Amino acid sequence: MSVPTRPKAAYFGAGPALLPTSVLQQASIDLITYLSNPVGVGEISHRSKDAINIIDSTKAHLSEILNIPDTHEVFFLQGGGTTGFSSVATNLLASFAAKTGKKGQPAYAITGTWSKKSYEEAARLGLEPQVATNGINSKFTGIAPVDQWKKLDPETTPYIYYCDNETVNGVEFHAPPVEATCDGKIPLVSDMSSNFLSKKIDVSKFGLIFAGAQKNVGIAGITIYIIRKDLIPQVGTEELNKLNIPITPIAFHYPTVVKNNSAYNTIPIFTVHVLNLVLKNLLANGGLAAQEKENVEKAQLLYGVLDKHPQLFNLPVAKDSRSKMNVVFTINGEGKEEEFVKKAGEQELSGLKGHRSVGGIRASIYNAIDLETVGKLTKFIEEFASA
Amino acid sequence: MSVPTRPKAAYFGAGPALLPTSVLQQASIDLITYLSNPVGVGEISHRSKDAINIIDSTKAHLSEILNIPDTHEVFFLQGGGTTGFSSVATNLLASFAAKTGKKGQPAYAITGTWSKKSYEEAARLGLEPQVATNGINSKFTGIAPVDQWKKLDPETTPYIYYCDNETVNGVEFHAPPVEATCDGKIPLVSDMSSNFLSKKIDVSKFGLIFAGAQKNVGIAGITIYIIRKDLIPQVGTEELNKLNIPITPIAFHYPTVVKNNSAYNTIPIFTVHVLNLVLKNLLANGGLAAQEKENVEKAQLLYGVLDKHPQLFNLPVAKDSRSKMNVVFTINGEGKEEEFVKKAGEQELSGLKGHRSVGGIRASIYNAIDLETVGKLTKFIEEFASA
Repeated sequence: MSVPTRPKAAYFGAGPALLPTSVLQQASIDLITYLSNPVGVGEISHRSKDAINIIDSTKAHLSEILNIPDTHEVFFLQGGGTTGFSSVATNLLASFAAKTGKKGQPAYAITGTWSKKSYEEAARLGLEPQVATNGINSKFTGIAPVDQWKKLDPETTPYIYYCDNETVNGVEFHAPPVEATCDGKIPLVSDMSSNFLSKKIDVSKFGLIFAGAQKNVGIAGITIYIIRKDLIPQVGTEELNKLNIPITPIAFHYPTVVKNNSAYNTIPIFTVHVLNLVLKNLLANGGLAAQEKENVEKAQLLYGVLDKHPQLFNLPVAKDSRSKMNVVFTINGEGKEEEFVKKAGEQELSGLKGHRSVGGIRASIYNAIDLETVGKLTKFIEEFASA
Repeated sequence: MSVPTRPKAAYFGAGPALLPTSVLQQASIDLITYLSNPVGVGEISHRSKDAINIIDSTKAHLSEILNIPDTHEVFFLQGGGTTGFSSVATNLLASFAAKTGKKGQPAYAITGTWSKKSYEEAARLGLEPQVATNGINSKFTGIAPVDQWKKLDPETTPYIYYCDNETVNGVEFHAPPVEATCDGKIPLVSDMSSNFLSKKIDVSKFGLIFAGAQKNVGIAGITIYIIRKDLIPQVGTEELNKLNIPITPIAFHYPTVVKNNSAYNTIPIFTVHVLNLVLKNLLANGGLAAQEKENVEKAQLLYGVLDKHPQLFNLPVAKDSRSKMNVVFTINGEGKEEEFVKKAGEQELSGLKGHRSVGGIRASIYNAIDLETVGKLTKFIEEFASA
């Protein structure tokens, strides 16, 4: 039995998504024997020195890659986007209450499926969220300029929430909407689950960033949080009840998690270890600068060939909001999309069907998909267009 | 590079804990290439046919092993014991409200660290829990007979909660406390995180069983739930607000999770796959009957040698509540415990230190620790006692 190698896959699924093969090979060894011990990394205590080293090393690598300032803290929670947006809502309300004594109404920029779900969860939790902007009438084909968004009041708005990249709709912010924060008075909260570490960001501009690992940085089961430290303290349960703010389940209570270095409850240490290996691999390959450069080239190449055939390919998203991670398009002509997916499959180009809620074609070109693989896809698209 | 083999480890850690080596070897291959595809099992979509097959196969294996009746449903959530006890509280209150229109007050049997934490979380969430029994005054060294517990009223008690095996304290129920359910009128809820699939159980007696995977059945990151189907329907948020019952975050809302076959949010499919491999391995080795037989023999062997030296070893837990998974003891004599751990380490017997909250020695002998390995430990203990 030997650690498998594998041919480079041209798998364009929207996530969970491809990871570097060398990362998985190392993880597969460590799963059985970690640091040459007869115990694997998934079997060690989450309170052991080796586990704490993994947590601390992962935090350090994140800080290095993103140049995270001392004003911010990194922590990890189980879950993904869905646990992320629920926990953001109740934790940041409790933090706002600690600062102001008030409940407030969080604001949401609704620019696609995920921010819509986040808004709906805030409403379900009884938070009476404000709508900063809503792209549903234009079917999430672009983002309204921030100066056209609702003007928010920092006195009553605990945070402004947006999704940096909408995986389903292929809509991405080309710059974070900092203008919506009233000169930084309202914390900016960003769900970066599907474009985390795809480009440089200025962490100091954010109150909170969270990202499920399973697109660009790992396997499913862990979410990265980067929070501005002044947003950590919260009021206690008595005050929460008085203000009618939902109590966060203890495993997702940010002050408890931060105080326990992300190991209040059992942290899935194998999953964190895979994340750490991805981060090391990114650093070894030039860091975020090199990764962003390649991601820009990949997106230019793919959008370029699609734009060359406007009679065949329909790109619904406005150019200034096109995602560099999830390239979404439809194909004109009866049965053409099925034909596209089928013929692509024959060339081992897979994972191209659009999300079941919107249909069409979606090519997800996350960090682990290199320029060469995107080149294979664009070659196929050219052939398809000229057939 | 080849898939590592490893010597059999004598690692007695309390969890995450050892898994069968052959399971990890298969998992390490599947992490890179699953079903001979160039995509690993951690990289496939949680909505793909392969992922759904893993979920369904895992459920089927659990049903086979535990003989789960049609009255019950299996589902999975991220997290472990801590997310388990929080989600139980809010979900089952909402279910009780659907049946009775009332909030009710859940009851807790407090028999160790974990049931105490569960009770405290229910209190923190504002549920005003009842105490069915509380062993804290006797330092959790046994379980009061069920006929001495508080008599519960089925009209106002949504569920009776207990922890089948207290990992920290080494206290285990030798039979579930069904007498506390008022002839089954009150749903019996059991946290079996640290003895799940260590022995046969009659699932029909339970309203809900949950178990974090990371002791006997997998790596950290997934929790198994087995729920009686009539406990799934819940009142909506309006009714919850009226009754002052906390709203469960959507990713932990049982009706939503069950309706979506455990994939409402991204399920960590690699982690489920490891669980499934453990279940297959258990079935291939004689199922629960063979496993329970070996676990009984292991516990008899280990307690037997400790009981032979009462002047040296102090076993705080009453015999009728001794855990077959976590054997807890202290050693009389200044510095003796440090000496024990050190000498054991020299013989590569590791993971023996007691929980930081209680001290002493704890030998966890989960399913993956075989009789031979327990034999090594008892041989060492004999030598230590006669030195």
